[in-house]
Amino acid sequence: MVSPELSHQYSPMAKPHVRNKTHPCLTDGFLFLGGAFFALLIVWSFSSLLNSAPRFDSTPLSEAKATSEARSPGCAANLRYDPPDETFYDDQELSYSIEKKIEDWDEKRKRWLKLHPSFAAGARERVVLVTGSQPKPCKNPIGDHLLLRFFKNKVDYCRIHGYDIFYNNVLLNPKMNSFWAKLPVVKAAMLAHPEAEWIWWVDSDAAFTDMEFKLPLERYRNHNVVVHGWPKLIYEAKSWTSLNAGVFLIRNCQWSMDFMDTWANMGPIGADYAKWGQIQRSTFKDKIFPESDDQAALIYLLYTEKDKYYDNIYLEGEFYFEGYWLEIVPTYDNITGRYMEIERRVRTLRRRHAEKVSESYAAQREQYLKEAGNGRGSWRRPFITHFTGCQPCSGDHNQMYSGETCWSGMVKALNFADNQVLRKYGFVHPDLRDSSLVSPVPFDFPDDGPWG
Amino acid sequence: MVSPELSHQYSPMAKPHVRNKTHPCLTDGFLFLGGAFFALLIVWSFSSLLNSAPRFDSTPLSEAKATSEARSPGCAANLRYDPPDETFYDDQELSYSIEKKIEDWDEKRKRWLKLHPSFAAGARERVVLVTGSQPKPCKNPIGDHLLLRFFKNKVDYCRIHGYDIFYNNVLLNPKMNSFWAKLPVVKAAMLAHPEAEWIWWVDSDAAFTDMEFKLPLERYRNHNVVVHGWPKLIYEAKSWTSLNAGVFLIRNCQWSMDFMDTWANMGPIGADYAKWGQIQRSTFKDKIFPESDDQAALIYLLYTEKDKYYDNIYLEGEFYFEGYWLEIVPTYDNITGRYMEIERRVRTLRRRHAEKVSESYAAQREQYLKEAGNGRGSWRRPFITHFTGCQPCSGDHNQMYSGETCWSGMVKALNFADNQVLRKYGFVHPDLRDSSLVSPVPFDFPDDGPWG
Repeated sequence: MVSPELSHQYSPMAKPHVRNKTHPCLTDGFLFLGGAFFALLIVWSFSSLLNSAPRFDSTPLSEAKATSEARSPGCAANLRYDPPDETFYDDQELSYSIEKKIEDWDEKRKRWLKLHPSFAAGARERVVLVTGSQPKPCKNPIGDHLLLRFFKNKVDYCRIHGYDIFYNNVLLNPKMNSFWAKLPVVKAAMLAHPEAEWIWWVDSDAAFTDMEFKLPLERYRNHNVVVHGWPKLIYEAKSWTSLNAGVFLIRNCQWSMDFMDTWANMGPIGADYAKWGQIQRSTFKDKIFPESDDQAALIYLLYTEKDKYYDNIYLEGEFYFEGYWLEIVPTYDNITGRYMEIERRVRTLRRRHAEKVSESYAAQREQYLKEAGNGRGSWRRPFITHFTGCQPCSGDHNQMYSGETCWSGMVKALNFADNQVLRKYGFVHPDLRDSSLVSPVPFDFPDDGPWG
Repeated sequence: MVSPELSHQYSPMAKPHVRNKTHPCLTDGFLFLGGAFFALLIVWSFSSLLNSAPRFDSTPLSEAKATSEARSPGCAANLRYDPPDETFYDDQELSYSIEKKIEDWDEKRKRWLKLHPSFAAGARERVVLVTGSQPKPCKNPIGDHLLLRFFKNKVDYCRIHGYDIFYNNVLLNPKMNSFWAKLPVVKAAMLAHPEAEWIWWVDSDAAFTDMEFKLPLERYRNHNVVVHGWPKLIYEAKSWTSLNAGVFLIRNCQWSMDFMDTWANMGPIGADYAKWGQIQRSTFKDKIFPESDDQAALIYLLYTEKDKYYDNIYLEGEFYFEGYWLEIVPTYDNITGRYMEIERRVRTLRRRHAEKVSESYAAQREQYLKEAGNGRGSWRRPFITHFTGCQPCSGDHNQMYSGETCWSGMVKALNFADNQVLRKYGFVHPDLRDSSLVSPVPFDFPDDGPWG
């Protein structure tokens, strides 16, 4: 017979929820742990699921794997990955020629970037600088030497800021020669560099004279082309010097392709080339030579089709997007002095550093340049000094100035710029007119010590 | 009086563990959920802790934050970050001069890299190419034009492979002129680029003629210097042409600093400069000119101190780490033909693509080049064609060849190389002797279609 205790425990009538009297905490404990375990199981499953499945779309796992292949370690752009998926490159209608139009370029670039995800980071600010000169040796005996130095100058700037640079020295379209030659190169570069948001044409006779200054791309976020220019000089003065077409930034997009198509057709490939020369000459009284030129053509488009072009072409007049050498060259020594003054006061600006972190010091220097101004009359380093009218290659400079003024001006500009580069390698040209002589830069230069 | 049921429930003697009979599941449920909640709380706390605390070391949170600042979005190298922490740059004893030794360079570089974590990715393969020429215009009328083209060639190669390039055109040490001038530049570059594992000196008269080929750095993992050379020609033939010092790879490390110190002191800055000239002349019977030169000095070190140098200096003889132009130039047309044959057979190699993914096609092409061989007698594109003895700048070429052979050879080499670049921009030089003429590259070139 069952004992009263036990019978009550098991009595169906009472139906108490009775636990084993030996391990009441253990049972509760199991319940508790069971809940904990269950929760962890859910969290782990969820986590595994999130990490293995592709995100945001329904691409199959094989594509997700391909995407991970597409990214190289360290997230640098993967130069070794070009998937077989069709892009605009596989379209037999595609032409690199300035004479053939392209359609849907925005979609085509977008697709290429999507297929090459390792290029996504930084895509919106990626710039390729394009420059160049003629295929044959220069007529001016020191022409090629100067071009070499101007090219080195650009390579230095690009190295400091992480831009790619392409030097062109062939005529891509036999009709588009002289100043028109840049348009076929820019178009080809846009197609060769779908990873680039901007192509930056810089004439062979333009030098970077502020190695630290960066293009304020944010300023141009709503525009597709940037040139140095002033609206008043276009719409009121109708001047051929209202802007300079020797340095321009152009966004790698369909609008730009269409614009370049229009622009180029005012040149030698266009049916109305001869007519354009006459129209430009009669519109811009200070246009010197008779043939249609790229600069006059650009001003003409802005002048006559303001609605279409003014909102897309940024006329940058607030700093030396490119600057007239004649007014700039005499200011270098003073500018050097002003910057040295700042460095004498500010210890961190005297600090030696790796060339690759120069932008950090540029940012620090900025606060001390607030009083410097910008552009003409300022003592800020001019961004770009452009030797318009000097023609270093042919030597056929504008008769307004002597050749000697041009060449010696170039030497000063190039040495002024080189000093900003060479400093990171421990040296400086003490005299801007002397390209050969360099001196070591002492530690903590230009601090003169307690007696300075 | 308590009913028998209830009295048994509450009887101290039985001590059953009794639950409220109304919500037995709810209570269990609460226990279970309690366990689950507790587990989730633990997981969340742990996760928060892991994400906020610095890892691997005991750096304070401020440093961890600085580290996250140090990394720019997309993991590209952060050009805008140079922390205030002391590095070798802040040591007033540091000198960029070839005449001053440096100590503990390995530790100093390591510390710099640690403070600049955004440069860590790819650090072990990071290369900076250094080249250059004299400060003044060349004596040879076409000298600077050729130098300009050779420079463009190097810039093209570096752009394709993501290397930085520095062109030097000043004499950093007035005594170290001529072929000795490169050593001060290499040292300065090592200090200016602590982010670079390798500095690659390439003479101004050397051109890349295989734009796709990459340095097999893995091959050199146990060495600090790489030159084109052959042990037999050093240790048996004692020849001045046993290696070429015009193209060398040098690891950015203390061993290299010490080695360059020794090397440079066999040059004009060394006390025994005159003596070295005599020693070299008598050791290497085919050394032409009397003064101590960098190439003879290097061979001499390998020859006399084999134990010290042979294991550190890689004598690369298996491909054209640099190749003698005289034997190479006549092979370009044949090589062009062989590569075109492959492309006719292999559709993917005909595919147009962005210049930036050229390495992908290089990798694909490799399998078809297995029969090509390497170096002399092969039909593989020679990596570098070096115009030793041509002296493009002065024009004082070795009398063994005519100037015309030199210049026309250079033009062929430069156009042969340029064709590999220009192709990505849609054009090609149909004739290697003609630098001016380019033609558009048709879609699917060089496939001739079904009748080809």
